Amino acid sequence: MINRLIAGIKKTKAPVVVGLDPTLSMIPKQILERAYGTFGETLDGAAEAFWQFNKEIVDFTYDLIPAVKPQIAMYEQLGIPGLIAFQKTVAYCKEKGLVVIGDIKRGDIGSTSAAYAVGHLGKVQIGSRVYTPFGEDFVTVNPYLGSDGVNPFVEVCQEENKGIFVLVKTSNPSSGEFQDQLVDDRPVYELVGEKVAQWGALCMGDTYSNVGAVVGATYPEMGRVLRKIMPKAYILVPGYGAQGGRGKDLVHFFNKDGLGAIVNSSRGIIAAYQNEAYEKYGAACFGEASRAATKDMILDIRQALEK
Amino acid sequence: MINRLIAGIKKTKAPVVVGLDPTLSMIPKQILERAYGTFGETLDGAAEAFWQFNKEIVDFTYDLIPAVKPQIAMYEQLGIPGLIAFQKTVAYCKEKGLVVIGDIKRGDIGSTSAAYAVGHLGKVQIGSRVYTPFGEDFVTVNPYLGSDGVNPFVEVCQEENKGIFVLVKTSNPSSGEFQDQLVDDRPVYELVGEKVAQWGALCMGDTYSNVGAVVGATYPEMGRVLRKIMPKAYILVPGYGAQGGRGKDLVHFFNKDGLGAIVNSSRGIIAAYQNEAYEKYGAACFGEASRAATKDMILDIRQALEK
Repeated sequence: MINRLIAGIKKTKAPVVVGLDPTLSMIPKQILERAYGTFGETLDGAAEAFWQFNKEIVDFTYDLIPAVKPQIAMYEQLGIPGLIAFQKTVAYCKEKGLVVIGDIKRGDIGSTSAAYAVGHLGKVQIGSRVYTPFGEDFVTVNPYLGSDGVNPFVEVCQEENKGIFVLVKTSNPSSGEFQDQLVDDRPVYELVGEKVAQWGALCMGDTYSNVGAVVGATYPEMGRVLRKIMPKAYILVPGYGAQGGRGKDLVHFFNKDGLGAIVNSSRGIIAAYQNEAYEKYGAACFGEASRAATKDMILDIRQALEK
Repeated sequence: MINRLIAGIKKTKAPVVVGLDPTLSMIPKQILERAYGTFGETLDGAAEAFWQFNKEIVDFTYDLIPAVKPQIAMYEQLGIPGLIAFQKTVAYCKEKGLVVIGDIKRGDIGSTSAAYAVGHLGKVQIGSRVYTPFGEDFVTVNPYLGSDGVNPFVEVCQEENKGIFVLVKTSNPSSGEFQDQLVDDRPVYELVGEKVAQWGALCMGDTYSNVGAVVGATYPEMGRVLRKIMPKAYILVPGYGAQGGRGKDLVHFFNKDGLGAIVNSSRGIIAAYQNEAYEKYGAACFGEASRAATKDMILDIRQALEK
């Protein structure tokens, strides 16, 4: 699956992923009114609004980018109707040829992690029949439980040609509380990075591994170190835009081949029409605003990489 | 909510929680045949089998125990129908007066953790109306992202009188890979335990906090230390039975008041009829086998605490 992601990045010349993390406050009135008109002010109504919103964002950006990253929490918040909207979003993005990274941050003891791995990346056997419950291409995984919790995902990646991104150094302000603690003078996130390299060796694509890592754009110096510790791991970089990361902060996340990282922006793209820079599009043309913001982000990163 | 859990533990004299973590291989043939007969060999059929299996386990054990802990991964593995079975299980257990601990191990950056917290413990506002998507009483939370990831859960606990159990030292064999790493001669799990005590101070019940911790039965010596670091935190102890923990290993997880810990068993209870000790009940009477196993577990723990 990492081969497909890299092919998409090369084709679009855009190491960029759009985070499909809708909230009700960013959905234009016309979409909310239509959805509530059909389903009422219900979880079904809100989920329909998420889905229609996502669809328009995808329709306006899919030709520019290789991948999307829906954050399942936003959908899970709406209960079952929300998770149906998540599933529809995953399926629609795959139809459009996009690689889908499910931002699920799951991780548990062995047999339980296996259930998550099968449910999101693999197939489940019911009697004599086989189903694909969620069908993402990649998912994010939390490493706190150690190899037991990650290996079941790696096994499904091997069987199904799928991939994972393991949380190494997250983009949030308090990520250092545990991740930066020094163990023999080295931060915990470096130890996790070493494990990512080991897990990744079991699951290689042509040049990069199907086991990647999450390292926040907000910590560029740590990105530089981690890049060396995990040379074959693709780095998924959240925190661009709304969280404060900029193109120039990102160069150390890439290898000399110009590959090795993919940068996520969520709010900065999908709620672009609410941002001063793109407000001229208005809520009616929010998809065009997102397209413009995507193009600007791609340009920002390309220029930074060219320097 | 911790007050309600403690009241239930005192009433039943059973610091025991039954883990509702079904797998297809533990579901008796008569339930599978009925479910597949109605829904076919589909995700809906498997989810119906989970639900009917759970219902019988609950009917045979609810008067003995204060709480249940459904593991959402087992349900998520079956996609949307599975998550509907999870939701039905949560609602049914609440109807039966049980405290429901959703074993979801979620955790993300702030706004995303807030979405999980609202979806599982709180209420979501859609226009002028308010919904309770999943409605658990407690959930488990992964601390790898630090306070940003946990605080949104604590806030919902304060608003809604709910509770959480933060992963501190998990029961699985590789939990030490990161959790046991020494920071200034102290393992990471102790630092997490200290944070649990801090978060917990913001969210106290009468004698214990609504912020508890997960510490595996398989690490009793670590339980002894953590008990002192987090005196007001209830400890949820997985790993009893099938994972190897026994009553005598558990005494250090409790405080001198006889409270402070609740012990989970999943497979050992719900698949009891498949265990030599209870096979006389047979698959037809699997609920009675679970009831017998629950009684034996309660006795084992009571005897260990009396010594």
